[in-house]
Order: sequence, then structure tokens, then C-alpha cells
Amino acid sequence: MSLSKNKLKYIRSLKDKKFRTEYGTFVAEGNKMVTDLLPYLKCQLLIATADFLSETDISDIDEVIEVSPSHLGQASFLQNPQQVLAVFYQSKPENSVDIDNLLSLALDGIQDPGNLGTIVRLADWYGIRHIFCSHDTADIYNPKVVQATMGALARISVHYVDLPDFLSGKKHLPIYGTLLDGKNMYEQEITPNGIIVMGNEGNGIRPQVERLITRKLYIPNYPVGNPTSESLNVAIATAIVCAEFRRRSL
Amino acid sequence: MSLSKNKLKYIRSLKDKKFRTEYGTFVAEGNKMVTDLLPYLKCQLLIATADFLSETDISDIDEVIEVSPSHLGQASFLQNPQQVLAVFYQSKPENSVDIDNLLSLALDGIQDPGNLGTIVRLADWYGIRHIFCSHDTADIYNPKVVQATMGALARISVHYVDLPDFLSGKKHLPIYGTLLDGKNMYEQEITPNGIIVMGNEGNGIRPQVERLITRKLYIPNYPVGNPTSESLNVAIATAIVCAEFRRRSL
Repeated sequence: MSLSKNKLKYIRSLKDKKFRTEYGTFVAEGNKMVTDLLPYLKCQLLIATADFLSETDISDIDEVIEVSPSHLGQASFLQNPQQVLAVFYQSKPENSVDIDNLLSLALDGIQDPGNLGTIVRLADWYGIRHIFCSHDTADIYNPKVVQATMGALARISVHYVDLPDFLSGKKHLPIYGTLLDGKNMYEQEITPNGIIVMGNEGNGIRPQVERLITRKLYIPNYPVGNPTSESLNVAIATAIVCAEFRRRSL
Repeated sequence: MSLSKNKLKYIRSLKDKKFRTEYGTFVAEGNKMVTDLLPYLKCQLLIATADFLSETDISDIDEVIEVSPSHLGQASFLQNPQQVLAVFYQSKPENSVDIDNLLSLALDGIQDPGNLGTIVRLADWYGIRHIFCSHDTADIYNPKVVQATMGALARISVHYVDLPDFLSGKKHLPIYGTLLDGKNMYEQEITPNGIIVMGNEGNGIRPQVERLITRKLYIPNYPVGNPTSESLNVAIATAIVCAEFRRRSL
């Protein structure tokens, strides 16, 4: 079976945040990705080859279309389309969650979809359940973000908030941030709970957010004082900080 | 002044590894990137706006062409061209280097240019001077790799080698690798020198390379045993491992 023009138009429209929000859906592609998401998220539309369908439980999916690999290519956002493309319903995170005993992340204007997706994936690795993003952070349902999460998306709640406002309401928690004038993180007291703030790729953390950080951290380079890159990629820095928090809680 | 067709053709040819190798040159773009590389690498051709040129020492550059921003856009590989594009001569790393007292990286088939560039950048942060890549690892002078290194490129020697062959000659050094059946890296003895092997994004480390690893490491997730992503992005894993090696040597 081939895809109708309307279906193709609908899928392509989901590249655009405006339409993703209007329909409350998003696209995920690839055998592993879709297989990983299916147990967690309700699927509206599954477009797949016969091979994929023969191995997948499709009983709970609104609509299933079997296509040839070449027809799948027409709909795909990827350069190398795989055997399956799925449209899932977005999951809306609860409005108020109790994070007092958890370690959470706050992202202040992360722009690059690959960085956001990679951060979601590593948050999943480190058992971080909630990520609070400023409104200008990349959209979690952007197809490039979805692909970079490698399926971790389904296990993480991503909340879009007014970040200064949100952090102002969390003053009873330790609020960490990596800043060039921070304290060597290996010498700083670390708690098993709290919020770690990470900033924009080029500009770092905004002043109105920085003001709310109570524990500034610095990732030392090696050897200390050596001429080096001015900074680390934000996903890399997030990983190093999260790994250190979790190491000390092991 | 505008760019001749021949110049444009030359620059565009440098997207292609074949031509980069033939000419021994590569392209870097952006004010900060080019400014960072100029002190380290010989520049063959600099194409820049008057603004950039007025602030830059161009005495040692083979050829300088002043252009309007729109002419720069014609030559650029970027979606948002900046004020400058430069063609640099590739630096050839020395054939034999003594790494016995150093911590080095070996990359077994890293495919994604962004991952390779990010690894070079973090290697710079952690004072790792040599990276040994299997021949099928992405090309360090691929424009996307160059951009992701954020200038660190000039301070790191990247060697393309037959990796099993190379590692066989380093049996007197500890050879580390992250593997799913490795030992929790926080419980493993770590040395200030040696080689850390990282594998391909999808397939990990090849069996013929794995055979040469004497100390297998595992990055524990948190909480241990929690359902999580199957793996971390390779640049993320490299960062977490390098940070831990350097933390213990601080």
C-alpha cells in the first residue's frame, strides 16, 4: 500500500513545532527507536514494512499502514530511512511534581537538538527523571531531538517552564550550576538531591538564572592551568557533572 | 572583491576527503574558530569581511581576499555563514611519538563527525595530546569535525593507524576500553598513563581490538540495575571516562 498525499502532508507538518503542538503528536523513526517507545507511548500511526510488522505487537495502535521501503522513504525525515516511521501522542508531564528528594536538571536555553537529545539520554542513564527547560530551549519533540534521545525520551519528563520563576520556588533545594567562576566540583559538597542548571551553548547561564544558583561548580581541566579549549560542549559538561554526583552517591 | 569560479570550486572540493588529501588542506569557518587556529596552523587562503581583516594579523597568510558577507555565503559550508572562511594546511603528526608516559585515546571506527569533533575538544580539555584512529574513523579534516572541535584541533595530534597493529605494539602499556562486560570503573585501578579505546557508535569495539584491551571498564548507571538506555553516546562515555582518569590524577 502507498501513502496518501494527506498522510504525507500530515507527517511532514510534524517537522514544525506549531503543528506538533496543534496535533499533540510527534514523529519517531527507526526499528529500535520505535520498538523502544511502543511500550511507553500511545501510537497514532505506524508506517512500516511487512518485515517490521510481522515482529511487532500492533494491537494497541490507532492506524497501521504497511508500505514498501521506497514508500517509507517518501515520508522519512532521515537521510537513510529505516523500516518504520511512527507518529506518537505527546505525553504531557504532570504540572506539579515533588522533586525535593530527587536530582533534577534545568536547561537554560539549550539550542542544539543533538545536545538536548544527548542530555535526555544521559539523564536516563543516571536515573534523572525530570528536566526543566526554559521556554527557549529546543523542543523535545523536534525530530532531531527525538532521534538523539535513542528511546530515553519515554522515561524522562521534560517540563517547559519560566526558569527564573521555577527556580525561585525551589529555594529550599541546593541549586547547582557550572560556571567559570565556580568552585572545583571535586572539592565542593554534593548532595544526592537538588537541581543542576546547565546553560546555553554560546552564552552560558543567563544572569537572572545565575542569581538563583546557590552552589557554583567548575569542572577542572587537566593539568590545571594548561592552555586548553575555553569550554566543554554542554552535553559533555552535563555528563561529567552528573557522573560525579552519582559516583558520590554510589 | 568577489570570488572567482575557480576559488569557489577549490573551496567546495574540500568538502571531499579525496581532494583534502590531494591538496593537503582543509576549511575552517567562523571568527572564533579561525582566530583560534591562526596562531597554530599555516593559512593558505583567508576569505573575510573588512571588519574581520581590520582586527587580524594577516602577515603570514599566503592569500587574503576581502569580500562582502553575501559573497562569503557563496563559499560557506555553514547554514549561517560568519565573517570568515579560511583554508589551512593540514598538519601531519609525527610518525612515531613516545606516548609511554601519557594518557592517550584510541578510536575504533567513530563514524559521526560531531562525535569525533567533540572528542577532540574534550581531549584538549583533559590534556590528552594524541588520538589514534582506525582508518575507518571519520576524517579529522571533515568540515563538520573541524567545526565541532571548536579550535581544539590545532593542539591535538590525530593519527590514522591500523588499530590492532598499533595496539599490538603497545603491550607494555595498560590498554583500557569501555565494554558492557567491563569492571565498574570506580573500582578498577587506574594509571596516569595508557591508552583508552572507544568504539563505534552502533557496534562498539571490534573483536580484534577488544582482544588487546587489558583493562575493561564499565560506566555504572544509577541506580545500578535501573532500567535505562542501553548505552551512552560515545563522546559522552569518553568524557566520563577521561574525567575520572584525570580526577584520580589530580
